[in-house]
Amino acid sequence: MIDLYHCARSRSFRPLWMLEELQLPYRLHVLPFPPRVKAREYLGLNPLGTVPCFIDGDVIMTESSAICQYLADRDETHGFSVLPSDSTYARYLNFLSFGEATLTFPIAIYMRYTRLEPEETRAPRVANDYRRFFFGRLRAISAILSKDDYVCGGRFTAADISVGYALIFAAMNGLEDDFPPEVFAYLERLRARDAFRRALNAESAPNHQDGGQA
Amino acid sequence: MIDLYHCARSRSFRPLWMLEELQLPYRLHVLPFPPRVKAREYLGLNPLGTVPCFIDGDVIMTESSAICQYLADRDETHGFSVLPSDSTYARYLNFLSFGEATLTFPIAIYMRYTRLEPEETRAPRVANDYRRFFFGRLRAISAILSKDDYVCGGRFTAADISVGYALIFAAMNGLEDDFPPEVFAYLERLRARDAFRRALNAESAPNHQDGGQA
Repeated sequence: MIDLYHCARSRSFRPLWMLEELQLPYRLHVLPFPPRVKAREYLGLNPLGTVPCFIDGDVIMTESSAICQYLADRDETHGFSVLPSDSTYARYLNFLSFGEATLTFPIAIYMRYTRLEPEETRAPRVANDYRRFFFGRLRAISAILSKDDYVCGGRFTAADISVGYALIFAAMNGLEDDFPPEVFAYLERLRARDAFRRALNAESAPNHQDGGQA
Repeated sequence: MIDLYHCARSRSFRPLWMLEELQLPYRLHVLPFPPRVKAREYLGLNPLGTVPCFIDGDVIMTESSAICQYLADRDETHGFSVLPSDSTYARYLNFLSFGEATLTFPIAIYMRYTRLEPEETRAPRVANDYRRFFFGRLRAISAILSKDDYVCGGRFTAADISVGYALIFAAMNGLEDDFPPEVFAYLERLRARDAFRRALNAESAPNHQDGGQA
């Protein structure tokens, strides 16, 4: 059985969504945010105190996009993985990384210095630097989505979960109105997926209750 | 022939180092930093203006750790890739992502607000927030390197290039003295590799001269 430690709407939404796409059984442990402060016993499981923490037998992973890649490879029958022999393999690896390493961190900084920090340590100029950074980098997917429905072409893959969550995270932070139309249409396409809706439901009503204990 | 667009000591050092590990032929194009300002014709090739830009026939990639994964898979005979059937595959994917998505961006922010920005827009408090973030996350590799020589166990893989460059980048920003001993020893082990030294030489004396033009 797979265990996923999660905070609502955090980047652990990526593996949660992937699990729903693959229709794999899992136990979802929903922790208060930030777990390193509000669920200190969780540090015994993941000393970083970050989510996700994903456990599949002997496997422990903490990187949300890498977990999606691992899960897509673990069950190739769904076609959410791209094989090294495929002509879109390079694009697949590039956008798996891009979604997290390039598109997500600027929003995390934006959120921190506009909303999470107490008033006296907010930094609106820094937040704006990384808002600009995000929209600059978004051009890489705009170009693709003007032609294709998904980042690897015509089919949905784990790379769309990596990029898609970054867009959802930006939307949660009030930036959706500034998305170019092709990016907005892509986000709507992702939000309409059954597995995406099931993942949203799962985080509101987890199938496993442990009182937020790890 | 592979073309790599690079700025000295930037994260495009990852694919440069990987190319040297694999002993593949390549053309290295060294651009002034930041290329989006100082080599504007480069935007025609990579509209993001970022490095790396890696071109291998029809393949174009911009994410440094993903390029290393792609190259390691392209030439498996060297054993720098880890196959999905291997027991360390999950760890491999996790640290490929971790090196870039978790360990590198905090140093990029630290550098920006201590050194790159003009005096009047520096933000020492923000820089210090992300210095602390980096050292907090470093615990994930400390635990492994207390037991193993490399992040996937006993052998060097592309994941060591992802993590290793983050450490080199931190060292370039004056943070090396605070590394735990097992992390410092790991960095020394990586720096002693022939391919690492060849990559350093290559960026000082590129094998392809195009006057910084893309």
